[in-house]
Amino acid sequence: MKSDIEIAQEAKLIRIDDLAHSAGLSDDEFEPYGRDKAKVALHKDRKPHGKLILVTATSGMPAGSGKTTTSIALTQGLKRLGEKAVVALREPSLGPCFGMKGGAAGGGYSQVLPMESINLHFTGDFHAITAANNLLAAMIDNARHQGQVNLKTVIWRRVLDVNDRMLRNIVTGLGGPANGIPTETGFDITVASELMAVLCLATDLDDLRARIDRLVVGIKRDGSAFTCKELGATGALMALLLEAMKPNLVQTLEGNLAFVHGGPFANIAHGCNSVVATKAAMTLGDWAITEAGFGSDLGAEKFINIKCRAAGLTPSAVVLVTSTKALKWHGLVPLPDIGKPNVEALKKGLCNLDAHIDNLKHFGPEIVVSLNHFATDTDEEIEIIRQRCAEKGVRFAVCDGFIKGGEGAIELARAVMEAAAGEPKPLNFSYETDDDVVTKIEKLATNVYGAKDIELSAAAKKDLKQIQELGFDRLPVCVAKTPYSLSHEPTWLGAPKGFTLPVQRLILNAGAGFVVATTGAIMRMPGLPKQPAALHIDVVNGKIVGLS
Amino acid sequence: MKSDIEIAQEAKLIRIDDLAHSAGLSDDEFEPYGRDKAKVALHKDRKPHGKLILVTATSGMPAGSGKTTTSIALTQGLKRLGEKAVVALREPSLGPCFGMKGGAAGGGYSQVLPMESINLHFTGDFHAITAANNLLAAMIDNARHQGQVNLKTVIWRRVLDVNDRMLRNIVTGLGGPANGIPTETGFDITVASELMAVLCLATDLDDLRARIDRLVVGIKRDGSAFTCKELGATGALMALLLEAMKPNLVQTLEGNLAFVHGGPFANIAHGCNSVVATKAAMTLGDWAITEAGFGSDLGAEKFINIKCRAAGLTPSAVVLVTSTKALKWHGLVPLPDIGKPNVEALKKGLCNLDAHIDNLKHFGPEIVVSLNHFATDTDEEIEIIRQRCAEKGVRFAVCDGFIKGGEGAIELARAVMEAAAGEPKPLNFSYETDDDVVTKIEKLATNVYGAKDIELSAAAKKDLKQIQELGFDRLPVCVAKTPYSLSHEPTWLGAPKGFTLPVQRLILNAGAGFVVATTGAIMRMPGLPKQPAALHIDVVNGKIVGLS
Repeated sequence: MKSDIEIAQEAKLIRIDDLAHSAGLSDDEFEPYGRDKAKVALHKDRKPHGKLILVTATSGMPAGSGKTTTSIALTQGLKRLGEKAVVALREPSLGPCFGMKGGAAGGGYSQVLPMESINLHFTGDFHAITAANNLLAAMIDNARHQGQVNLKTVIWRRVLDVNDRMLRNIVTGLGGPANGIPTETGFDITVASELMAVLCLATDLDDLRARIDRLVVGIKRDGSAFTCKELGATGALMALLLEAMKPNLVQTLEGNLAFVHGGPFANIAHGCNSVVATKAAMTLGDWAITEAGFGSDLGAEKFINIKCRAAGLTPSAVVLVTSTKALKWHGLVPLPDIGKPNVEALKKGLCNLDAHIDNLKHFGPEIVVSLNHFATDTDEEIEIIRQRCAEKGVRFAVCDGFIKGGEGAIELARAVMEAAAGEPKPLNFSYETDDDVVTKIEKLATNVYGAKDIELSAAAKKDLKQIQELGFDRLPVCVAKTPYSLSHEPTWLGAPKGFTLPVQRLILNAGAGFVVATTGAIMRMPGLPKQPAALHIDVVNGKIVGLS
Repeated sequence: MKSDIEIAQEAKLIRIDDLAHSAGLSDDEFEPYGRDKAKVALHKDRKPHGKLILVTATSGMPAGSGKTTTSIALTQGLKRLGEKAVVALREPSLGPCFGMKGGAAGGGYSQVLPMESINLHFTGDFHAITAANNLLAAMIDNARHQGQVNLKTVIWRRVLDVNDRMLRNIVTGLGGPANGIPTETGFDITVASELMAVLCLATDLDDLRARIDRLVVGIKRDGSAFTCKELGATGALMALLLEAMKPNLVQTLEGNLAFVHGGPFANIAHGCNSVVATKAAMTLGDWAITEAGFGSDLGAEKFINIKCRAAGLTPSAVVLVTSTKALKWHGLVPLPDIGKPNVEALKKGLCNLDAHIDNLKHFGPEIVVSLNHFATDTDEEIEIIRQRCAEKGVRFAVCDGFIKGGEGAIELARAVMEAAAGEPKPLNFSYETDDDVVTKIEKLATNVYGAKDIELSAAAKKDLKQIQELGFDRLPVCVAKTPYSLSHEPTWLGAPKGFTLPVQRLILNAGAGFVVATTGAIMRMPGLPKQPAALHIDVVNGKIVGLS
């Protein structure tokens, strides 16, 4: 089979003007970026009407789950059934693209195009977030340097969209008083910037401004919060983020509209694409397919409890992506062997599928399990999963979108249409808005992850005290947690139960509107592996090669 | 009078498709970025034919010289005379835009549009350079961390497009062995990245690749160079810079084509826009107007000795921008008083004009002095300058482009057409390509800056030895020097003579193809002032305000 980038480069793209016009957009509703991308600003009187479908997955494994590919395949499959379906995805991050993971624009015959551009600079949204984040950092430090503010703690860190472990912990401001104040700090990857979450959750420019105003960037000597508003940086950040707030329109390999906008990671942030893009997809499509990063314990949980609650969205159905490989991995088969038939291990790994189904059942929407089909899957293995889904009372479909595009997702598309036929069921949230932060984490830990209780580190207790003093202890919670286990410990596969969830730090994200609770040993800045993907990427005859 | 941004936002822009088509570009020669910008890739069989005009200025002063404004005014003036004129400028840098200087897209009625976009993210070229520069840094440090290379010195630094003094000197890799190797390093501003110079000097993708391959990023334990090629990072950097290599097409307020591409600072880099953009302007225009940063001692010197020599360009005339304010400043009038009539001080400051005329005479092209006219100029003052130009045997014109646009530059346009009527005179370079680095600096110091000799610091002598050992001691020289004086000392105004030029460091830029010689106390990362421009920038009703 051809590589992803070969398939993408051989595709005949619809010109973005034609794509936009055929979707009923007028010229003042979009601006082309190149011949195949556009920034969209829909007329204000248009309203979302499409059914919203969330795509999530069983727990992660090193080989990836195929969630983006399935989202695109489903969208293409719906089109083949004559439905108007639009997909809304997250933008890939440059860091992992040159590191281990590669790009994130789908795969095989279920991709969004232009794949190279989407994976690299795209329309510059992440660069805008990087620039805004770091201008804010420079303005905070400048105010300190000029003696305009005296901070006990600088909370705001810098970001870069690169995997660079050397920047995790640094000391800035060396070289004498003309060069600033020596300060221990560091860089996170751009997707971990609070501004990324702010951009993704903001419903419009006014909301964006209010959220940026609220950013708590430091703590003053008297213990009170030093905000972006008080610093006077909001306007400059608004100017830098003005274009980035507009959702990006591209196309799938089979010519569906695709919005690709915003890209927080679900292990360290809320992991959902932007509210404005999701709503744009619901406005232009009768079906809006969106994904949330990783599993029901990460992206889907935050999609429901943070994004849907804040934006007033209700999904009509949830697609739970799984694979024989993922389940065998959670049945304790080592990575090199997960492509080999192994019914016992598969059965053992079904507990992971069960746990995710149970989580999703609790949230409320109808569920369709989608098997991301591999050539190595045996009929027996597929039947075992189908059987288990029947026992759990949820729909099941095999998806061959990678190999066959939309044609391979017709079974899935039919199942989704059936599941979403009625009015969407009201959502059950995992916690009350009124619960305090600790109660919220406890409810997530016990009801979603399978823990028996939680334990706050000494640092987390100190954080909590400060958050209470600042009056933010009723915010929603965004847990930073490994995607490789339902627990905080990546090596605990299957469906671990009865453990204590260790909460390391509580980080106030007042602009995003949540408190980040870090658990286990989560990194907010990845490193490059021994053989980075960058070594294989090149330009040949003016075209990019080696991007996967 | 209205502010720059008000004038810009009230202008009726030609749609970029119409602008490109009216210039004879076919659809496959440009890609729109929004409705008013495009990336251009001209057919290979098109050849440059237009006359090239360089715009430079007398020595800097805190209020700026109006070089960009004059370049645009001249281009608009030529259009009013029925000539096909295209301007080729540098892209503004985000850092100064939010710092002290503000934007850099011209001013008044001589601007390039869309002003806000050009001043902010534009088409993302600088972000691409930032990303490529920092991926390279991460790959170098990763190779060290993984034990794949053992370096005595890491030369490559990181960059960000922000004024942030705290990043000048930092220690990275703290927090234990999993987080890298503790290393003293720092960030420069993006325009100071060697990749910026590489992008601006590269004639095509093959040349870009060859230059990136040659980047010397570290010194190995055996004293040999560790290059980007050896690291294997060239392909990834090519992919990141592929779009950024294409020149950006926009328009002037009066509808001329304008290329805005590349933006190295002339005090710390070679200070000229890209070779590809200059050639594109010469291809689409009968007149190509381009600027080089600061004075004849900085941008113009490097334009001639580095850019023209490498790219085989010969300007038909040089415009030397000056003003009564600049000359009075160099006649030792304090800043608050430079707008007041002062004939004595003006006469005293003429020595600065003389020195720049003499430098330009040495280079060869015909010279037109352009007085950037202010309402406070008296007739007597203007006559003194006109008289001095007559004595020096160079043309003189008053330019009112800021207030009147092209109409205010007709006198200048006529003078330029007259000056450039014949075949361009061959260039006199300041040094032979065969001269060693030290001889080259000596020739620049004595023949261009007015020094009697040069003195290498101990560090520079050590640098020289290493550059000699690596075999790069015959490269051209790019002097980093203050723009406020012909000397290295910003407070020595007028035309200082007979001083010794102190050379602090010699920095190998093997990819750009020159050795940077730093003199005096030049900074490669600016800081923010007490009241950064960022404090006044905002978004009101969806439009950016306060950008100047």
